[in-house]
Amino acid sequence: MKLAVVTGIARCTGIGHAICDVLLEGGLAVIGLDLNPLEASSFLPTKYPHQFRSRICRVDSDPINLHQQLNEKAFLPTDDAETNEEMALTRLIARLEEYDKYIQNNMRSAFLVTEVCRQYFPPPNPGVTPLLSRPSASIIHISSTRALASEFGPKYCQEGYASAKAGLLGLTHAQGQSMARLARVNVILPGWIDTEDHGNGGYIPSDVDHGWHTTGRVGNPRDVAQMVAFLADDEKSGFITCQEFTIDGGVSKRMHYPET
Amino acid sequence: MKLAVVTGIARCTGIGHAICDVLLEGGLAVIGLDLNPLEASSFLPTKYPHQFRSRICRVDSDPINLHQQLNEKAFLPTDDAETNEEMALTRLIARLEEYDKYIQNNMRSAFLVTEVCRQYFPPPNPGVTPLLSRPSASIIHISSTRALASEFGPKYCQEGYASAKAGLLGLTHAQGQSMARLARVNVILPGWIDTEDHGNGGYIPSDVDHGWHTTGRVGNPRDVAQMVAFLADDEKSGFITCQEFTIDGGVSKRMHYPET
Amino acid sequence: MKLAVVTGIARCTGIGHAICDVLLEGGLAVIGLDLNPLEASSFLPTKYPHQFRSRICRVDSDPINLHQQLNEKAFLPTDDAETNEEMALTRLIARLEEYDKYIQNNMRSAFLVTEVCRQYFPPPNPGVTPLLSRPSASIIHISSTRALASEFGPKYCQEGYASAKAGLLGLTHAQGQSMARLARVNVILPGWIDTEDHGNGGYIPSDVDHGWHTTGRVGNPRDVAQMVAFLADDEKSGFITCQEFTIDGGVSKRMHYPET
Amino acid sequence: MKLAVVTGIARCTGIGHAICDVLLEGGLAVIGLDLNPLEASSFLPTKYPHQFRSRICRVDSDPINLHQQLNEKAFLPTDDAETNEEMALTRLIARLEEYDKYIQNNMRSAFLVTEVCRQYFPPPNPGVTPLLSRPSASIIHISSTRALASEFGPKYCQEGYASAKAGLLGLTHAQGQSMARLARVNVILPGWIDTEDHGNGGYIPSDVDHGWHTTGRVGNPRDVAQMVAFLADDEKSGFITCQEFTIDGGVSKRMHYPET
Repeated sequence: MKLAVVTGIARCTGIGHAICDVLLEGGLAVIGLDLNPLEASSFLPTKYPHQFRSRICRVDSDPINLHQQLNEKAFLPTDDAETNEEMALTRLIARLEEYDKYIQNNMRSAFLVTEVCRQYFPPPNPGVTPLLSRPSASIIHISSTRALASEFGPKYCQEGYASAKAGLLGLTHAQGQSMARLARVNVILPGWIDTEDHGNGGYIPSDVDHGWHTTGRVGNPRDVAQMVAFLADDEKSGFITCQEFTIDGGVSKRMHYPET
Repeated sequence: MKLAVVTGIARCTGIGHAICDVLLEGGLAVIGLDLNPLEASSFLPTKYPHQFRSRICRVDSDPINLHQQLNEKAFLPTDDAETNEEMALTRLIARLEEYDKYIQNNMRSAFLVTEVCRQYFPPPNPGVTPLLSRPSASIIHISSTRALASEFGPKYCQEGYASAKAGLLGLTHAQGQSMARLARVNVILPGWIDTEDHGNGGYIPSDVDHGWHTTGRVGNPRDVAQMVAFLADDEKSGFITCQEFTIDGGVSKRMHYPET
Repeated sequence: MKLAVVTGIARCTGIGHAICDVLLEGGLAVIGLDLNPLEASSFLPTKYPHQFRSRICRVDSDPINLHQQLNEKAFLPTDDAETNEEMALTRLIARLEEYDKYIQNNMRSAFLVTEVCRQYFPPPNPGVTPLLSRPSASIIHISSTRALASEFGPKYCQEGYASAKAGLLGLTHAQGQSMARLARVNVILPGWIDTEDHGNGGYIPSDVDHGWHTTGRVGNPRDVAQMVAFLADDEKSGFITCQEFTIDGGVSKRMHYPET
Repeated sequence: MKLAVVTGIARCTGIGHAICDVLLEGGLAVIGLDLNPLEASSFLPTKYPHQFRSRICRVDSDPINLHQQLNEKAFLPTDDAETNEEMALTRLIARLEEYDKYIQNNMRSAFLVTEVCRQYFPPPNPGVTPLLSRPSASIIHISSTRALASEFGPKYCQEGYASAKAGLLGLTHAQGQSMARLARVNVILPGWIDTEDHGNGGYIPSDVDHGWHTTGRVGNPRDVAQMVAFLADDEKSGFITCQEFTIDGGVSKRMHYPET
């Protein structure tokens, strides 16, 4: 019997509860997790006594508790897992720390610095109705084409990097709409930009690396900087906000096939 | 019994044939259309004798034949349809002409003018290996945010306009990759740009129109022209190709709800 | 002096006119094309007498006239071009025919067959206010991941295929909104689906081909057919319309680098 | 003189350094921030002695230090700001806490629960080469159309919600590629799903709310659950991974204009 773990299942009118119901109808076993106990009016325990279990636990903060809740001898084959429990926990916590670091460095930092700066933003231009005031500040986040795609196979914690860089796309339109009339907010997604220090042993892109790009070269930091200057200039980009700008030499719009 | 019309069904190993099979399994009736006769090895007529019919007809060019093929007294309730057949055909042909006109004016024209111009494109820069040559020409198509979304309800033939403007997004990366080393190709998606002649009775955007935009104003033609100038300049955008640039005052990134 | 060709330039309040102005300001030479003569009130000829020329010609239909208009001894280096004029024209017309065929077969056909079928769509469900009627028909277009990306380098006329498959994405939301309450309209973007007839010499995907996909295999026609069945079923997808569904084994979300 | 604040500027070969250079060329004043001191070889202080300042501070973690660094009497008009400094800091810290809570609840939790569960995933199917093994586990994240667009004007901390829900899109393809052969990973973006408890005073969608949707109704939890069941079923969606599925009644593909 296939097993599903579903989170956020306590409220009978919620999405998680409905997911349990449809999966149980389909014959799966389900473990439902929620911070709160399942509402007493839920029909799930009665309707599916042998397929359904619910557990009360947080899924957002406490890896050890979550691990233990799932590790119960319920539906899961725990024999192998138990022996390695300590190792599994150590690995889990290390992964989580790595993930958190990526989010802090690459996404939260962008929110924080903007919030600090916004107190200095010029007020909307005076002398017009609020409806017609226009933003004079410009925020430009630097995301990555890694917001859109990831490398095949297990790598460094690319989950954290991709979450952060994709999160910046959400931050961009949320800030842009929230700060309407006050600031324009846009985001740049660079691809391969050569930021190595070639004079000190930094990797020098090969001809193959350059030729991989539709433009015939990898990017350099000024490619990004020119777009920043464009987006910072109200005369040039005053009608642009909440948007994404990919600068990657054409790679993300290239259809790849295995070489034969 | 629900009825499905599936096109391109003749080849037993094709997608259309598999679609018929899965829908028939699910209990639907199916009319399959193809330019060619159904392959003799197809199991569909034998497996579903009462649910499946195939018809030989072109679906890309001849509205009258297609209309007649479907209009047969097969599964379809034709009584009402027959009385209005002539009217239906007239309307169909008019719709198709309108659609074709949009495609010709807004998409095919962009392909055509590029093909005429490309014979004048400077050759890839000499003195380097072909792998490292870089494009010096720049093509900039003008699409629309109508490539991404459409108005609620039946309008003028917005099917044609949206098809053409979305088609330009495909043309952009196809040309960009095909003309690698020769030209960079990008596309701009403007939103509401005020191109009316206000001195001659053209509509003047109201305060509400301006305020609808996150930027506090509708766009003007120079907003688009500045991006064109940026994308035409190798010094500024030499690492950008195959990409889409939306200039719409933030409207496409705004979540709308009914006003209460 | 860099030369720009700008289309649709006749109206002084239009986007094309503004593009000319900004590019001319930036020091480029500009040839402006339009079906109509440049409005007499345009300041372009006076302001930029040595940089600007306008030509009256259609850019959407007549390759020969367009070719000749651009081929004038104006700014363009025509010497080389002239000798090959006939060959260039022949090639141009062949390319255009190929492009048109792709559009007709892969995009126009989808519009046409839908228009023919829609007369048989069940009317919106009765007994409720029009506001609350719900669609019972379902249209499912088959696009391709080629709508989103193209192969590097000059290929068969991939411009036509990509334009058509991307155009279907626009057709989808335009039809979906136009036929609100009458039909749901969605589009599937398959990646590599093996539709070859292996028993008759069709190419059999290699292990490398399968392994190229994140899923460990290429697709088969039933992968697409299952999604069609899901989208055709009101009980399962009744809240889904105007949307795109990519089925490609994860390839379009994979970040590729040159192999070393 | 317009002022820019640029982060991550210490390395001379980095993107931040190039952004400073191009903005300074354009006549702006620039404050550069970095955790590390500006490299001694940087030409910025010498080339732009009156326009450029650098500050050493973290931008990802310590709002108070960041606030103070920017609050120096450098270029910024600090008189007004100083008086409200305490208030500004209190507000800043509250905003940051709210942001962090959204990320923890809506994005980090999805990573955490997946990491805990993955130790129970079935191993890749045996008996085949690793290249051809196929995933049997299926992860389905629940994002939101708020990943793609935000409401106009200052709201509750929609920056946090949008960052988290957009971050899930990045998490999806990163996990999907990292867990290739082990699990398929997809994400659903629901729009307006009615999860209110109508029997206990929960908001009941009005006819206008229903009619706002192209489908003529708002969504219900089973609309999402059906897609979950589809994506959990290898027989139906075994070729689908790393993809996004929007279920929103057509709203995100609707072009809105001000009502007149």
